Amino acid sequence: MENNYYNRLRKICTTKHSRLCIGLDFDLEKMKHNTIKDLDSLESFIKDVIDSTVDLCPVFKPNFAFYEKYGPPGMTLLKNIVDYIDNRSIVIADAKRGDIGNTSKNYAESIFNYYNFDAITISPYMGSDAIVPFLDNPEKGVYLLCLTSNKSASDLQYKFSDQTYLYQDVANLASSLNNNNNIGLVVGATKQENMEKIKEVAPSLTWLIPGIGAQGGDLGQSVRISNGSENMGIINVSRSIIYAGNQSLDDIRDAAVNYNQQINQFLDYNE
Amino acid sequence: MENNYYNRLRKICTTKHSRLCIGLDFDLEKMKHNTIKDLDSLESFIKDVIDSTVDLCPVFKPNFAFYEKYGPPGMTLLKNIVDYIDNRSIVIADAKRGDIGNTSKNYAESIFNYYNFDAITISPYMGSDAIVPFLDNPEKGVYLLCLTSNKSASDLQYKFSDQTYLYQDVANLASSLNNNNNIGLVVGATKQENMEKIKEVAPSLTWLIPGIGAQGGDLGQSVRISNGSENMGIINVSRSIIYAGNQSLDDIRDAAVNYNQQINQFLDYNE
Repeated sequence: MENNYYNRLRKICTTKHSRLCIGLDFDLEKMKHNTIKDLDSLESFIKDVIDSTVDLCPVFKPNFAFYEKYGPPGMTLLKNIVDYIDNRSIVIADAKRGDIGNTSKNYAESIFNYYNFDAITISPYMGSDAIVPFLDNPEKGVYLLCLTSNKSASDLQYKFSDQTYLYQDVANLASSLNNNNNIGLVVGATKQENMEKIKEVAPSLTWLIPGIGAQGGDLGQSVRISNGSENMGIINVSRSIIYAGNQSLDDIRDAAVNYNQQINQFLDYNE
Repeated sequence: MENNYYNRLRKICTTKHSRLCIGLDFDLEKMKHNTIKDLDSLESFIKDVIDSTVDLCPVFKPNFAFYEKYGPPGMTLLKNIVDYIDNRSIVIADAKRGDIGNTSKNYAESIFNYYNFDAITISPYMGSDAIVPFLDNPEKGVYLLCLTSNKSASDLQYKFSDQTYLYQDVANLASSLNNNNNIGLVVGATKQENMEKIKEVAPSLTWLIPGIGAQGGDLGQSVRISNGSENMGIINVSRSIIYAGNQSLDDIRDAAVNYNQQINQFLDYNE
């Protein structure tokens, strides 16, 4: 089996029998533990959370904003976390990058080679030449923002002409660039009424699905429409897991187990 | 005079009689000096470049990719550069951020408070709630990607419906959010044939204009259409200045002086 990103993702999800992605978006100001007050104690806690959930979580996704805001020490923390996961799970850089080709090449070097992430989220606004530099290595994955989970997604993404919405054009663009089986889409779980329209134009792309939990998206529809023998949908949950209950490791693991069970209920085929 | 971003920009450009923005996008692998081989010597050189050009350059713009790729030490370098400029010029974070509101808030904290940038570039794909968190402080500026300078800008930005192109919708969106006089647009100098269409829908927004120099954009048209009594166009030049000639400080300053003179030839009003 070719070692492209899609096959790597498929393999680890099958092994763990899970489609869960945990968003590692911790905020020092919102921790429920009064002992976690600096980056050292936060790092130690994040590593414990990883160890408590890694057996049932095939994908982790730190959002760069939550690390970048602490400056260079925050970026060191981010690198330490990727190193600590150490290929036990796929790690997606939620960085929403995208720039002219020469610049994207430098971002790809940063995200994939320096930080050693397995995949990245990309904003599609600048078109293909902002995306292509991230696709060279078949083992590394790219998720294009397609239909995002936030309310103002409709400001631009619903623009309609020539029988397609802008978000469908993005799905088409992703399909056209999927020569290495390493590109997918970000599709918000809050946009269940539009998911079919994405499937129409790009039936076999893998999805990364935020918007479950705090944002209130539709889990059943999200899981069913995105998972099949040729494609996968990974469900991201951030706040509802990492701040669960009293934020004890038990509470966090329980929340992860619970989400995983809910997701698997909707997976209507055998692996 | 209100201390909003637009007025700050206007004041410093008038004082220096310049619309030049130098893109501080140095790449260690492309330096013409064989003595510059690590981040310490690069930092020292960048500071010399700043001192050699700051009198005629009201705006500097480092692109994050060129710093992020060196990991946390690269981010320290970036911070040191902003600190070194120390309000002698406006500094724009070319970071092309944009995420759901809660996340954008963290990015704004990072860029404006931790790194102390004066302005940021934003990708508009996720709509207004990804932009608003950056606009709270009237002194800090935001440039929305509108019509970018790269070839594949046309993949999505030219989508046309209801009598407007997508890039015009972005210009409209920016206008609607400009309550604090601190939002502008990124408009590529290579797209001169479409500039009028942006002016039609958003006549008074300030532009940041990349695409001059290495990318071959139209300088005269870019300067004339974007500068007036109510709006400004800042011309970014990166590679054609920072790698000029033998990359001596004299060569770099000469290139900056030359671009500044060319720009000012097209400025057809007195300050």
